[in-house]
Amino acid sequence: MIIVILAGGSGTRFWPLSRLRHPKQLMSVLGGKSMLQRTVERVLPLAPERILVLTNRLQAEESAAQLAYITQVPVEVIAEPVGRNTAPAVGLAARLALSPDTVLAVLPADHVIPDQEEFCALLRRGAVTAGEGKLVTLGLVPTRPETGFGYIQVPVGSAGPGPFPVSRFVEKPDVKRAEQFMAAGNFYWNSGMFLWRADVILDELSRHMPELHGALAAMDVQDGRVTQETLEVFYSGVKGESIDVGVMEKSARVSMIPASFGWSDVGSWSALPEVLEGDGNGNIFINASGMVATDAQGCLAYGGGKLVALLGVKDLIVVETSDALLVCPRDRAQEVKGIVAELEMRGLKEYL
Amino acid sequence: MIIVILAGGSGTRFWPLSRLRHPKQLMSVLGGKSMLQRTVERVLPLAPERILVLTNRLQAEESAAQLAYITQVPVEVIAEPVGRNTAPAVGLAARLALSPDTVLAVLPADHVIPDQEEFCALLRRGAVTAGEGKLVTLGLVPTRPETGFGYIQVPVGSAGPGPFPVSRFVEKPDVKRAEQFMAAGNFYWNSGMFLWRADVILDELSRHMPELHGALAAMDVQDGRVTQETLEVFYSGVKGESIDVGVMEKSARVSMIPASFGWSDVGSWSALPEVLEGDGNGNIFINASGMVATDAQGCLAYGGGKLVALLGVKDLIVVETSDALLVCPRDRAQEVKGIVAELEMRGLKEYL
Repeated sequence: MIIVILAGGSGTRFWPLSRLRHPKQLMSVLGGKSMLQRTVERVLPLAPERILVLTNRLQAEESAAQLAYITQVPVEVIAEPVGRNTAPAVGLAARLALSPDTVLAVLPADHVIPDQEEFCALLRRGAVTAGEGKLVTLGLVPTRPETGFGYIQVPVGSAGPGPFPVSRFVEKPDVKRAEQFMAAGNFYWNSGMFLWRADVILDELSRHMPELHGALAAMDVQDGRVTQETLEVFYSGVKGESIDVGVMEKSARVSMIPASFGWSDVGSWSALPEVLEGDGNGNIFINASGMVATDAQGCLAYGGGKLVALLGVKDLIVVETSDALLVCPRDRAQEVKGIVAELEMRGLKEYL
Repeated sequence: MIIVILAGGSGTRFWPLSRLRHPKQLMSVLGGKSMLQRTVERVLPLAPERILVLTNRLQAEESAAQLAYITQVPVEVIAEPVGRNTAPAVGLAARLALSPDTVLAVLPADHVIPDQEEFCALLRRGAVTAGEGKLVTLGLVPTRPETGFGYIQVPVGSAGPGPFPVSRFVEKPDVKRAEQFMAAGNFYWNSGMFLWRADVILDELSRHMPELHGALAAMDVQDGRVTQETLEVFYSGVKGESIDVGVMEKSARVSMIPASFGWSDVGSWSALPEVLEGDGNGNIFINASGMVATDAQGCLAYGGGKLVALLGVKDLIVVETSDALLVCPRDRAQEVKGIVAELEMRGLKEYL
């Protein structure tokens, strides 16, 4: 098996901790190791033959540095010259497989999944189904009527551990439809985690994205590797498209395996309380040298190594870095990307 | 004239910026120069012969360092070996005067008075009255029914610029009485600012505080100076008492001059908006390298030299120093001293 980790992304919603060169997946969002490091460590029990980390130029250096300590499995960081969404990246990964029946597991770098054992067990099951020629997608059992994710619909009555055939992929719904999906019981969150054989995905690309497949076929691959020059030519020549839209929504070979493990994509500061335990009053302190909470409740403080004192405040997010300080209510954490946009507009590049 | 600046005090209400060794008056509460520096600069137009700064041991070094740039007038920092309230300090200052008819102006180091010209004019008038043998106290025209200050009552019908005789000194009132004082119109806030001749205050000390006067009389003063040893002996031998209780409330020679200049003792973070101008939404940013305020209102942010981003918050105080971060609502700023008490209790001395 080859693990393909998709690690691009700007992570503006975790500003000021996340920056252009230091996005969410390279951050120690939970304290300690970064999300990328945790993602890599999570798959080590599967003993993959290689781990490919696809990221962008700005983040390649730090990604490689963060993963230098991984010695059990070869880790290769691939710097995409330009962002072209996920289809070119997964196509490239398939071309780098030394054998056509190699199973590739494609995983985002910014998911929190506390139960490693359950996760690895599910990937092993997914690899079996993928080995049988399916495009496997993991569908997360929804725990709330979330409007921020796409959904996967399976036939009514699909029961048990799957795999299930996929009826259709559904775009992010509004609240009303999300509630209907929850009630119906045959809708799952589209996790962005996939498993397939190299030859199967390339075959499906040739069917549904022939242009991309052509560029992949023309690529000069030596011993499962390409030069940076080859990458430049490939990426500058292909169009940006997601593998969901380009292949998954069209292919007849898609299977979904339901995943019910604890999961969060920690899409913003407000999601951290889902995955971190607070004190008796639900306050979470990360990277604080000490804390005083007087009549404080439901706050998240990222302390920059300092003593953090919260007095009489509720549901606040407080984040401190070496050059910036953010304070906002938890239910407005999504708007942090607006601050980043304003800083960009004002030309304050040093804070991006 | 000698200016006597009383600069002791722990300033726990400005934690985490104020510390044991760095209390309010040594802080750049308003940004830029410290309150002590501003207090000294404010009196320079009066061309006093000396400026005496009485402070405690922990703060003497930084006080002297902060005032080293003052060259127009000799500044002498006196480190009190122990705190003994104001009466011993003002007695000592009187003994250090080279001539008995020298006028001493006693000023706290932690007042904000934006109008230097008006302030100096009032001190000049006070010096005239003091020269005539009066104990002059400046009475601030109250602008709200404040319960945190003592009041000075003058005879009903006292009008004009004064000086007025003092009917009595009144302890901090409750809200109801404070409102009555405001309505009555012949009550003023006790500012703690005094003017008197050296011989007059010593004479009044001999009358009302004979023990202290004895210790002062026994003190070996050479050319208006005492050794640190002499200070040790003096301070260890006298009782702590305020000049208000020890002399002013008892003396028949007290005169009050009303002061209507802009004034604040900035007793806590919540008082800063009284003396600093905010942006269009009343947000005040101090020591911030940049600021983003999105839907933020009435906040005070002390930024530790960083970019401060406030999103969707109201009436919050946010203070960052090199080792601590405080967030609290403005109307609970008085409780910050409780945090200091808790840190002390927990033995976290490094944050005191």
